[in-house]
Amino acid sequence: MKILEDRILAEGRALNEDILKVDSFINHQVDVELMKAIGKDFADHFKDKNITKVVTIESSGIAPALMTAEALGVPMVIMKKQPSKVLNDDLLQTVVTSFTKGTSYELTLSQKFLDENDHVLFIDDFLANGEAATGAIRLIRMVHATVAGIGILIEKSFMPGKEKLTSAGFDVYSLARIKKLDKGKIEFVEE
Amino acid sequence: MKILEDRILAEGRALNEDILKVDSFINHQVDVELMKAIGKDFADHFKDKNITKVVTIESSGIAPALMTAEALGVPMVIMKKQPSKVLNDDLLQTVVTSFTKGTSYELTLSQKFLDENDHVLFIDDFLANGEAATGAIRLIRMVHATVAGIGILIEKSFMPGKEKLTSAGFDVYSLARIKKLDKGKIEFVEE
Repeated sequence: MKILEDRILAEGRALNEDILKVDSFINHQVDVELMKAIGKDFADHFKDKNITKVVTIESSGIAPALMTAEALGVPMVIMKKQPSKVLNDDLLQTVVTSFTKGTSYELTLSQKFLDENDHVLFIDDFLANGEAATGAIRLIRMVHATVAGIGILIEKSFMPGKEKLTSAGFDVYSLARIKKLDKGKIEFVEE
Repeated sequence: MKILEDRILAEGRALNEDILKVDSFINHQVDVELMKAIGKDFADHFKDKNITKVVTIESSGIAPALMTAEALGVPMVIMKKQPSKVLNDDLLQTVVTSFTKGTSYELTLSQKFLDENDHVLFIDDFLANGEAATGAIRLIRMVHATVAGIGILIEKSFMPGKEKLTSAGFDVYSLARIKKLDKGKIEFVEE
């Protein structure tokens, strides 16, 4: 998606080989018109998949997921991060470990909001190792819903997440694919 | 706002005198059309306040704040919750203590995204004791921006937050005002 790539080049900051800061338009300050364009792009790409719910993880995924849900005319479901296990009959939980951050959390979903008839479009801001996405997929499968697609704003193509999800059979659509990062340098995969 | 009150009566669950669960349309599953209507209502109410940024706190405030920002044609800024103090020159921080939950967190704002020329509309889902809102106001004032208004989805009018903010001179606009909660019972303030 050219407007996202252009924006990443203009305002994104590569801090090192791993970290790309996009806090002026995606993560901390949010460009609403950009999110709307992203939502329309995702909705258009997945329009034939009979999506019934857009699912994301709090909190950076919420803005693009909401705009995607709006464009598709379906509800959004936000999976929550909890520091530790919560006792609640309704709540499904799975541990997500972030190797980059060296932290773990319980990703949670109330089983009231997804069931076996749902076709889920999962949206997230970044895809790197794929831990968050695979955690979300585990929860979606616990309720026997179908993962109809995965929409990612920024894919770190030099990390294994995309390959893992694709080889497991998922339809992963990334709007910007980063080939290489270095301090002050951002290189995209040529399509 | 009648459609929000009606929805609270239909799907909200009063667990006791303090807790109202609205996780099927606001917090966990999100009704996108309702959020759009809420955003339009806030934008209409504050349309003469020269709002330059809509500010919220992750993560339940993001959906209504995004729709409000869209209706006003301005960016959204998400204040982040951190478990502990972060060392970063850009980052302003203030401790927010939730008496209801018995927890504390650092509310953070990068000073890159607000300055003294900004007129801020602060949006949040709930107003009870007002700890989160007063923390957000402290951060907004650290950068010498103006708090032009506060928009709340659900005000617990039997708690002191609204009165505290109003008597400090803030323009607080709440879409649904709860007079009383009890197990299975929800009563609104009569306007």
